[in-house]
Amino acid sequence: MQKKASSSTLGPEGLDIAQSFFKPIQGASPQSPTSQITKITVVGVGNVGMAIAQTILTQGIADEIALVDVNVDKLRGEMLDLQHAAAFLPRTKISASVDYSNTTGSDLVIVTAGARQITGESRLNLLQRNLALFSKVIPPLAAKSPDTIFLIVSNPVDVLTYVAWKLSGFPSNRVMGSGTNLDSSRFRFLIADHLDLNAQDVQAYIVGEHGDSSVALWSSISVGGVPILSFLERQQIAYEKQTLEKIHKKVVESAYEVISLKGYTSWAIGYSVASLARTILRDQRSIHPVSVLAKGFHGIDGGEPFLSLPAQLGRNGVLGVTNVNLTEEEATQLRVSARTILKVQAQLGI
Amino acid sequence: MQKKASSSTLGPEGLDIAQSFFKPIQGASPQSPTSQITKITVVGVGNVGMAIAQTILTQGIADEIALVDVNVDKLRGEMLDLQHAAAFLPRTKISASVDYSNTTGSDLVIVTAGARQITGESRLNLLQRNLALFSKVIPPLAAKSPDTIFLIVSNPVDVLTYVAWKLSGFPSNRVMGSGTNLDSSRFRFLIADHLDLNAQDVQAYIVGEHGDSSVALWSSISVGGVPILSFLERQQIAYEKQTLEKIHKKVVESAYEVISLKGYTSWAIGYSVASLARTILRDQRSIHPVSVLAKGFHGIDGGEPFLSLPAQLGRNGVLGVTNVNLTEEEATQLRVSARTILKVQAQLGI
Amino acid sequence: MQKKASSSTLGPEGLDIAQSFFKPIQGASPQSPTSQITKITVVGVGNVGMAIAQTILTQGIADEIALVDVNVDKLRGEMLDLQHAAAFLPRTKISASVDYSNTTGSDLVIVTAGARQITGESRLNLLQRNLALFSKVIPPLAAKSPDTIFLIVSNPVDVLTYVAWKLSGFPSNRVMGSGTNLDSSRFRFLIADHLDLNAQDVQAYIVGEHGDSSVALWSSISVGGVPILSFLERQQIAYEKQTLEKIHKKVVESAYEVISLKGYTSWAIGYSVASLARTILRDQRSIHPVSVLAKGFHGIDGGEPFLSLPAQLGRNGVLGVTNVNLTEEEATQLRVSARTILKVQAQLGI
Amino acid sequence: MQKKASSSTLGPEGLDIAQSFFKPIQGASPQSPTSQITKITVVGVGNVGMAIAQTILTQGIADEIALVDVNVDKLRGEMLDLQHAAAFLPRTKISASVDYSNTTGSDLVIVTAGARQITGESRLNLLQRNLALFSKVIPPLAAKSPDTIFLIVSNPVDVLTYVAWKLSGFPSNRVMGSGTNLDSSRFRFLIADHLDLNAQDVQAYIVGEHGDSSVALWSSISVGGVPILSFLERQQIAYEKQTLEKIHKKVVESAYEVISLKGYTSWAIGYSVASLARTILRDQRSIHPVSVLAKGFHGIDGGEPFLSLPAQLGRNGVLGVTNVNLTEEEATQLRVSARTILKVQAQLGI
Repeated sequence: MQKKASSSTLGPEGLDIAQSFFKPIQGASPQSPTSQITKITVVGVGNVGMAIAQTILTQGIADEIALVDVNVDKLRGEMLDLQHAAAFLPRTKISASVDYSNTTGSDLVIVTAGARQITGESRLNLLQRNLALFSKVIPPLAAKSPDTIFLIVSNPVDVLTYVAWKLSGFPSNRVMGSGTNLDSSRFRFLIADHLDLNAQDVQAYIVGEHGDSSVALWSSISVGGVPILSFLERQQIAYEKQTLEKIHKKVVESAYEVISLKGYTSWAIGYSVASLARTILRDQRSIHPVSVLAKGFHGIDGGEPFLSLPAQLGRNGVLGVTNVNLTEEEATQLRVSARTILKVQAQLGI
Repeated sequence: MQKKASSSTLGPEGLDIAQSFFKPIQGASPQSPTSQITKITVVGVGNVGMAIAQTILTQGIADEIALVDVNVDKLRGEMLDLQHAAAFLPRTKISASVDYSNTTGSDLVIVTAGARQITGESRLNLLQRNLALFSKVIPPLAAKSPDTIFLIVSNPVDVLTYVAWKLSGFPSNRVMGSGTNLDSSRFRFLIADHLDLNAQDVQAYIVGEHGDSSVALWSSISVGGVPILSFLERQQIAYEKQTLEKIHKKVVESAYEVISLKGYTSWAIGYSVASLARTILRDQRSIHPVSVLAKGFHGIDGGEPFLSLPAQLGRNGVLGVTNVNLTEEEATQLRVSARTILKVQAQLGI
Repeated sequence: MQKKASSSTLGPEGLDIAQSFFKPIQGASPQSPTSQITKITVVGVGNVGMAIAQTILTQGIADEIALVDVNVDKLRGEMLDLQHAAAFLPRTKISASVDYSNTTGSDLVIVTAGARQITGESRLNLLQRNLALFSKVIPPLAAKSPDTIFLIVSNPVDVLTYVAWKLSGFPSNRVMGSGTNLDSSRFRFLIADHLDLNAQDVQAYIVGEHGDSSVALWSSISVGGVPILSFLERQQIAYEKQTLEKIHKKVVESAYEVISLKGYTSWAIGYSVASLARTILRDQRSIHPVSVLAKGFHGIDGGEPFLSLPAQLGRNGVLGVTNVNLTEEEATQLRVSARTILKVQAQLGI
Repeated sequence: MQKKASSSTLGPEGLDIAQSFFKPIQGASPQSPTSQITKITVVGVGNVGMAIAQTILTQGIADEIALVDVNVDKLRGEMLDLQHAAAFLPRTKISASVDYSNTTGSDLVIVTAGARQITGESRLNLLQRNLALFSKVIPPLAAKSPDTIFLIVSNPVDVLTYVAWKLSGFPSNRVMGSGTNLDSSRFRFLIADHLDLNAQDVQAYIVGEHGDSSVALWSSISVGGVPILSFLERQQIAYEKQTLEKIHKKVVESAYEVISLKGYTSWAIGYSVASLARTILRDQRSIHPVSVLAKGFHGIDGGEPFLSLPAQLGRNGVLGVTNVNLTEEEATQLRVSARTILKVQAQLGI
């Protein structure tokens, strides 16, 4: 698409100029296939997909970004809008096509495509439509990039990550969902904003379902290495359990709040997913709460639920899950979250 | 707004925690006003304004970003969406308010606000409405940040930059428009894409009006330091003047094309303006084609038109204009471009 | 120095070219003094000073870097070697002079200058010589940049930070030492290397004296938010206190080991100090263990010792010290560390 | 070396902790060999090699940096000094060994090793010793990384690049020398410093031998796209050919000047080579003057000399040479430069 677009305009003489402007040196080997190039595919060029693609471009995480969507015009418009910034950025190849061939050899495939809820539509019906969509999308993506890693962003993210895992036939470490990575950033922001410090100095996890049944790990919160709850106890500072619940509630409501105010969320999920992409592709081996196959952790059983746990990520995808000590209450909430997800999965019939 | 938002949720005990978590050292001086912090205000949180703000945030160009708009909900939604990414980025303060007080002490004010054309509305009528809008916006911004630099992005950019200059009463070096900085990047991308090289190795300017009367400086195009036109001549490569015109035409049509495909332009203008912001605030003293007071250059006379010329930018705004040698044809086109702009300015009555 | 160097070579016609190449626009205000430029002075261009200056340059933390040393040749050689890289980096002004006037208006002054121990010289004698050196260096630096922040790197860093505080007459928040910021990174590296994870996911502090009496805060170690010691207990994993002591010992010996192998340390201290510079100048408000006036913390009394505690840093210097809960053993060790430092300070006679 | 170092200190219980801290998820595939990791080997850990390695580390260009040298102590000291900065940087694996096995699978091998001139030693004798050194170094490096790209920095760089090409048996596009990439930056700095602008806005090449016979391409100099020489002519600004020669002379003398002042050059060559590494590994397809097989260009014949020409670089190494139009004088100088190099090559007997 990219090439056709330009050559149709500038004419065949372009090639002549290129060929006479650069001359090969003697004894050069032919150009190898660019298998060593880092390539990311983003499926879906809506607000979320484009915030992800643009942040990845700005941060220079990939050498090639391939965009996929069914809306030809929107797809081409977004591709051109990124390409036009070429003079302001290190070179990244931007391509776009409705054809999955264009995604061949991706190191990471980020899926943001999803059906939108129709007024009055049941949640189950919506999910069935998304299952139908993934059935069309995941198999050809997996076929074109058999060694890739899938990072699912579409909602409901936990169930759709399970769907992508089943449809791809990939080992579990190569399929994950963006899960509560963003919820955890919101959690850290609220705490940091409160204390007027840097959110990167705050450790805090939201785990479980990316949604109403998510679990705030109060015991995991630390600021600059100081566990907050025990700090407050030792300082004999009274705090109400109710206050903590309010913070968690605020995190859960954040997405709804932004959607009610601006119509959708985009920037924060873009940064969240770009941060996961960097950790994976640059083999950073760092820990993020993402949606993984959670069977066997913290007493979760009775099926194969995907939900968020603090996982170590790297070039091989999910390298492991941190063996966090949960309080009994947290573990119970997590198992409730798992059962919620399993119930939905059971309705899918895959 | 930011502070109220959080404290209302987390309650007064937040302050207690903060105060007991950090203790001041003895003999410390009180916190000085943060006059040394780099602050950018972005006026207008539509697609263009937000692409600019988000790119500036990702690239870490400012220590504080203040957003201004009249749409309270949208404004707050965009602020929250950026703030939620705190854990993924170096700390940048994000604030938002309908009140201009929040912009106090900005080092750079980027204006993207503008009225939209109503079906059937004459161009002049639209311009009058934009003049009315700027009359409300520019004076309070100038009053709150009397030493700031204005960077106008709203269209028609050249005339509105003139308007901002008049309304602010600022010296001319502290008022500029994004002009053809983006057109020039598109120009460089098309040439680089053609030759399969890095757009940053291509030097090429579009100058004059940001619009249909823009002027492509063919004589300025060089690739890796090799002037292209004379290269082609010496290589006796036939090229049609028509081909060059097609490339320029494609640049001019680029914005229209992207708008027809995706409904608006955002990413490329975001990168373009962020690149200007970096050059200005980090005193890079590098050359960009931006809209400046062009009186006296290349025989432009008869008024005070703003149009794009390759200008050296730095912490003092416009440091100078490069004394490019234009061909007679290019100079003539530029003067035509200037007259087009002057005609519009004359209708404004300011 | 920079200007003389070039103009003497290129001749007076350089100015003519510059003046004819750029023309000012009409109505421009004269260039303001560049008070808004971020300027860092590095005193001492030995291995440590240059690793710091070069890392700051690569990371784009400052708009101007001023180098100071008494060795004219070395100083000019290092300046030229950095300047020659101009085409590969965003523009940063690099200047160098034996004259303190060149440091005027610095936002941050980093002091790496120090006398070297002569064979057979007593530690006290060395310290007296360093005191004499600081007496010559600190007052003129403070006079040229009365609002600056001092960051002392010279060893023994804790005592010399105290000396700089006394000699500058600055409030305590504007004088700090690099302290155990690097020791803590070494600590985090050893733990991360052991667990094959990212050191940025490890929270761990070394506090107290930068030296043999430093204190490892075992209770503060957490990985991805999981406190390690309590994790091991709950997992019933046997660990020997001896093992922990070995890790701390290895940290303390790290500097000696690197010095014995390559003759000096440079890179790691360069990154450590650049990271402090970024936090301070970009007002990151993040937490670093640095040498601060520790009087009154954790029962430290009997004088005004500087030693490292986890402090929140920002544009105002030291914003506060985190109120970490120490174990009784850790607090006792810290007070021992403080007394060690106070004993040395007492011998200085200032 | 890295692993042994740590495990010997921290004991076998480290592994137990790691294994219990992270648990694999069910159905995960084993970790693949890290073939997708970007790996750079730097041979020689002297001032030049370390400035290169450290700049590559700071700029995040590689996922793994492998250091090689024959001096075991120095090698280990430099490795530790970089590793200790782990907490301040994104994770990059740093390894070091005297054993070439550690370099296996490098994407880029940068060679800075070289014999030093002994007082009274003839240039030819020095070259023979360097030939002997390369004979020991290049073949095992080529064997361990048969698909790598060699970037030679050791001096005399042009002849030693030829030597590396012969000894490796690689196609010519996968062997290049740093050549005049740095000389060209110095050239651009001197011009930019003169005009008080950004060196990145200056296009200017030094080509030919990296040394006394290098050729300044005056006709290629442009500032912001404006060819300088024709600009001066049109402005009727008198300039003396002598002035231009003085600038070139100053460039040639720069290395000697820095060496006489500080004893060696390091920072600028570090940035220069890091910039080449980025262009190659991120497939930037941008143009740099580097030492390539120059046979057949600009009338160069009579052998296979390596010398610097503006070349387009990317993931496949040297993609082509720009077909710059030289003046007759420049072309003649270039052929003289080629003959100088060929004469030396002829003495090598390979």
